[in-house]
Amino acid sequence: MIKNKIKPIAYLFPLPVALIGANIEGKPNFEPVAYVSIVEYKPPLISVASYESHYTNIGIKENGVFSVNTPSEEIIEGTDYCGIVSGKEVDKSEVFEVFYGELKNAPMISEAPLNLECKVIKTIAIKDLTGAEKGHELFIGEVVNVFAKDEYLTEGTPDISKINTFTYAMKKYWKIGEEVAKAWEIGKNYMKI
Amino acid sequence: MIKNKIKPIAYLFPLPVALIGANIEGKPNFEPVAYVSIVEYKPPLISVASYESHYTNIGIKENGVFSVNTPSEEIIEGTDYCGIVSGKEVDKSEVFEVFYGELKNAPMISEAPLNLECKVIKTIAIKDLTGAEKGHELFIGEVVNVFAKDEYLTEGTPDISKINTFTYAMKKYWKIGEEVAKAWEIGKNYMKI
Repeated sequence: MIKNKIKPIAYLFPLPVALIGANIEGKPNFEPVAYVSIVEYKPPLISVASYESHYTNIGIKENGVFSVNTPSEEIIEGTDYCGIVSGKEVDKSEVFEVFYGELKNAPMISEAPLNLECKVIKTIAIKDLTGAEKGHELFIGEVVNVFAKDEYLTEGTPDISKINTFTYAMKKYWKIGEEVAKAWEIGKNYMKI
Repeated sequence: MIKNKIKPIAYLFPLPVALIGANIEGKPNFEPVAYVSIVEYKPPLISVASYESHYTNIGIKENGVFSVNTPSEEIIEGTDYCGIVSGKEVDKSEVFEVFYGELKNAPMISEAPLNLECKVIKTIAIKDLTGAEKGHELFIGEVVNVFAKDEYLTEGTPDISKINTFTYAMKKYWKIGEEVAKAWEIGKNYMKI
């Protein structure tokens, strides 16, 4: 074995950053989360893992809805701020301009390039799977609406090269770099070998 | 409302790319997946959503183990190739050099900078949540071992700046760009406003 066995940690580089929005006691609250993923496309489903003690979880469980907002560099300070302070102690309802969609109770961020309005279809307490005393709650939500300004779209579809978003790894945020290759294309070179 | 309502798709930019490894009929098979996430850190858990008809799923369900391999640009052609052809038709066991760890049956890629050996603790058929006829299977696996070469580590921990990995969005692979800011730091500027 030429490799080192290192401490078993869930290393996955890099992770997306999304601001998860929920209303708690009628007030919008936002939490930046990197443990966020797509789990289905028909219907479109997003999974969000948020630690059980987080303030956001209260709102998601109360209302059964949440939002997923893609930040841009323009709002990186407010995004990170929402991860430093808890809604338990600080009112974060004024950090961003908020709007609502069809679900009425899933606060979305006007300044964020992309807003996904989601309805919870399943909640899993991870501690029930592991036997741990505490843990994350995994919310699986159906994307019922998506909102974006024209300036972020190309032919009606969100365009990452216009969004100026960032990614997360090693307690840092990183720019999206240049395009390396097309998926389902570059692999054809391997076949030619 | 100043935003457009666009087609409800699970937009999340950018996504990680991981090569999921599983043995099927005693042969290693690999599938590049972007629907991969962290869902817990204590114990460390990874979630992988793979469409139910995929060949990899057979092996994961049979053996209850899988691997998560972080690709580098050096193996981007082989990585993408594994997403173009199915193990049902093509033997992918020779695309990479394979090694095994403690779980014996989770094939890992020598050329990949990081290898996570995972044991399935929960499998969820997404169609059971949505009522759809078909769908992804969500595998939640505990990371039992992590392997990496010295050259990818800084003080014993994987270093994204040494790994030369890439990220996925809009059917393309993208480089990780420069560092924008430190998380739980840049937000302090917001507090000063």
